[in-house]
Amino acid sequence: MAPPDDEAPDRLEIRARELDRRHAGTDLRDRFELPPGLVYLDGNSLGALPRGVAAALEDAVRVQWGSDLVASWNDHGWWDAPLRVGDAIAPLVGAAPGQVVVGDSTTVRLHQALHAAARLRPDRPVLLTDPGSFPTDLYVAAGVAEQVGWTVVTVPPDEAETALARLAAEGRPVGAVAYSQVDYRTGRLWDLAGVTAAAHEAGALAVWDLCHSAGAVEVGLDLHQVDLAVGCTYKFLNGGPGSPAYLYVARRHLVEAANVLPGWHGHARPFAMEPTYEPAPGIGRFRVGTPPVLSMVALEAALGVFEGVDLGALRTRSLSLTRYLREAIEELVPALDLVTPAEDERRGSQLSVRHPEAYGVVRALAARGVLGDFRTPDVVRLGVAAPYLTHVDMLTAARALRAVLDGGEHRDPAYALRAQVT
Amino acid sequence: MAPPDDEAPDRLEIRARELDRRHAGTDLRDRFELPPGLVYLDGNSLGALPRGVAAALEDAVRVQWGSDLVASWNDHGWWDAPLRVGDAIAPLVGAAPGQVVVGDSTTVRLHQALHAAARLRPDRPVLLTDPGSFPTDLYVAAGVAEQVGWTVVTVPPDEAETALARLAAEGRPVGAVAYSQVDYRTGRLWDLAGVTAAAHEAGALAVWDLCHSAGAVEVGLDLHQVDLAVGCTYKFLNGGPGSPAYLYVARRHLVEAANVLPGWHGHARPFAMEPTYEPAPGIGRFRVGTPPVLSMVALEAALGVFEGVDLGALRTRSLSLTRYLREAIEELVPALDLVTPAEDERRGSQLSVRHPEAYGVVRALAARGVLGDFRTPDVVRLGVAAPYLTHVDMLTAARALRAVLDGGEHRDPAYALRAQVT
Repeated sequence: MAPPDDEAPDRLEIRARELDRRHAGTDLRDRFELPPGLVYLDGNSLGALPRGVAAALEDAVRVQWGSDLVASWNDHGWWDAPLRVGDAIAPLVGAAPGQVVVGDSTTVRLHQALHAAARLRPDRPVLLTDPGSFPTDLYVAAGVAEQVGWTVVTVPPDEAETALARLAAEGRPVGAVAYSQVDYRTGRLWDLAGVTAAAHEAGALAVWDLCHSAGAVEVGLDLHQVDLAVGCTYKFLNGGPGSPAYLYVARRHLVEAANVLPGWHGHARPFAMEPTYEPAPGIGRFRVGTPPVLSMVALEAALGVFEGVDLGALRTRSLSLTRYLREAIEELVPALDLVTPAEDERRGSQLSVRHPEAYGVVRALAARGVLGDFRTPDVVRLGVAAPYLTHVDMLTAARALRAVLDGGEHRDPAYALRAQVT
Repeated sequence: MAPPDDEAPDRLEIRARELDRRHAGTDLRDRFELPPGLVYLDGNSLGALPRGVAAALEDAVRVQWGSDLVASWNDHGWWDAPLRVGDAIAPLVGAAPGQVVVGDSTTVRLHQALHAAARLRPDRPVLLTDPGSFPTDLYVAAGVAEQVGWTVVTVPPDEAETALARLAAEGRPVGAVAYSQVDYRTGRLWDLAGVTAAAHEAGALAVWDLCHSAGAVEVGLDLHQVDLAVGCTYKFLNGGPGSPAYLYVARRHLVEAANVLPGWHGHARPFAMEPTYEPAPGIGRFRVGTPPVLSMVALEAALGVFEGVDLGALRTRSLSLTRYLREAIEELVPALDLVTPAEDERRGSQLSVRHPEAYGVVRALAARGVLGDFRTPDVVRLGVAAPYLTHVDMLTAARALRAVLDGGEHRDPAYALRAQVT
């Protein structure tokens, strides 16, 4: 690896432009409304605004709500939205139709998924999960475990197979493994297929959190016979702030799997208003309450971004972007500690950099128009949403990082650490 | 009661106009965007669109999401919204600040409320609720009961006190009573203060569902020492389709009450990303996952309708409207069976009419520009949202009802019963 010199920026820039030409077919920036001049590397926290969302929402408010009023539940498809939008998400996670329902938050969806898993495997009282999970996942796991009498055992996904064998040998059968496909902090992509197969081999169900993978990496839920999965839609799916989450339940479980949060929307005959709950056939039984229609409308319009897009080509673009970003940072700021794996098959769609003054670095980058994210205690997280980012954007980010660190801009006293929302 | 004659409409109309003049101070129709000529009697299913919502939402989409992006979590108050909007709802339900949190659906909020109640009264394994509850409430009650080992006993609210005494005598202590303040079907207003006092007298907690009362009748949660309450915001609060629900937990319970759906938003130190859940102090511990921000923005703007409004005066207006509607129907269509109580103190903000062909009646009324609601099997529900309805509207509705029934319009074959969403 060559040290940075005066020639380096130009060589890097020539290469960035060449790569952008090569990947021009997957440049979907025109489908978004992004502020000019901004390099937005936080699409894995809040995806950018797709074109068409504002108009769809204005119609939903002024025409559907304002003018057609309550009839819109039928006339504008509000009632069917949780399953219709679920079917729009399905191909993005490798699911055939009829297995994905949209609504509520990831927290609620994961709570449902783990309860359903516990009831499907009643005599296997151990839940295996990642100690490095996103906090909510750990809280939900602990909460459900307390309710159903599970013991939670934490090992990273790459130790799951060994742990499954060890626990079986100890007479402690695992009912479910619950993992995230991509680590939110490091960007590491885990082996969904391998861990799922190992879980099944041991008699356990596999539950996946796709928050940091759906829309960015290939998932293949049906192909790999995943049992249950959840995900948010406001990151790489660009559904807008707090857009509703989704739950996938494999078709083979849809008869037996139970919904711990029954409401009238999930009833077999909702309008009969019966006093006793009878779950709807199919994935509809996992509907909870009345979904936030306006947020749902925004999400549905946002998913138009993926229309006609080859997900494999998008993943190729993503890998090229993160690979190039890595190269550029290694060349321009060689001392930095890059946390995200270099190997394509172990990398999600982000690059995380470890730095003792990570918060100041993120703030100083933002002042230069490069928006990344801070993850406690010391991670600068650069999310790479392939549809609207270019290799030239990656170079701009790497150069900004060098300028910030060279100039000590990250030590500006204004950046004293404080609570930061993402 | 005089039979309808040719003079009747004029006398009724003179009276309607006189009453509208008398209540002109609470006519808030200018605060809404309603289609001209429509008499909208389904505001207890989906409230009308308040002015200002469309503009607030456009700003949230284009400026906050589209331009300011993830920084909006801080800069535009998205993070604080669940508690800030909760404090905006608080005065409408008679709660001091810091006891109401907004987000998720009523189903989820009721699930949280009942679990919290069960943990607060661990040795009292009976839940008392209304057999005529909205179906979701019965499903949630049955689901939570199964999880915590409660027995559900159903008696109407006016028999609660007797049932509490009987169950105590049988050695079956009641942990909580869970009732709706207004019956969704009949419009009957129950005695929230009396039932709450009786519950407390018996050692039980009182949990109220305010879906059909908040924004329409006086609630007085603090005054009557209610323990927990939930409600939706898309009926008389006009928050828009599927706008987020709320949960009230009385301050005295906020140290001990536990959240069965813990997520990182409800953690004491959310940005520390700690692996173990520690609930936030106060009502913030009942936050669940990431809230649907766009739906939340619409709700917050919608609540502006109530700014500077005397809720007592609004209730007086509502009672005058439903009283007059009753009089007009009794005069114009004397044979009809009016289900909603005639006494002011037992009437919510609707008038329900029983008719064997109720569905056809609702459809035929709609064809005449009077939008009511059908509730299985035989109820025509006329919701009266006082802020945007007048006594002249009530007369228009009563006349339409007479015309429909006189002309047999409700027997149009096009109105053969089918599933209807509200």
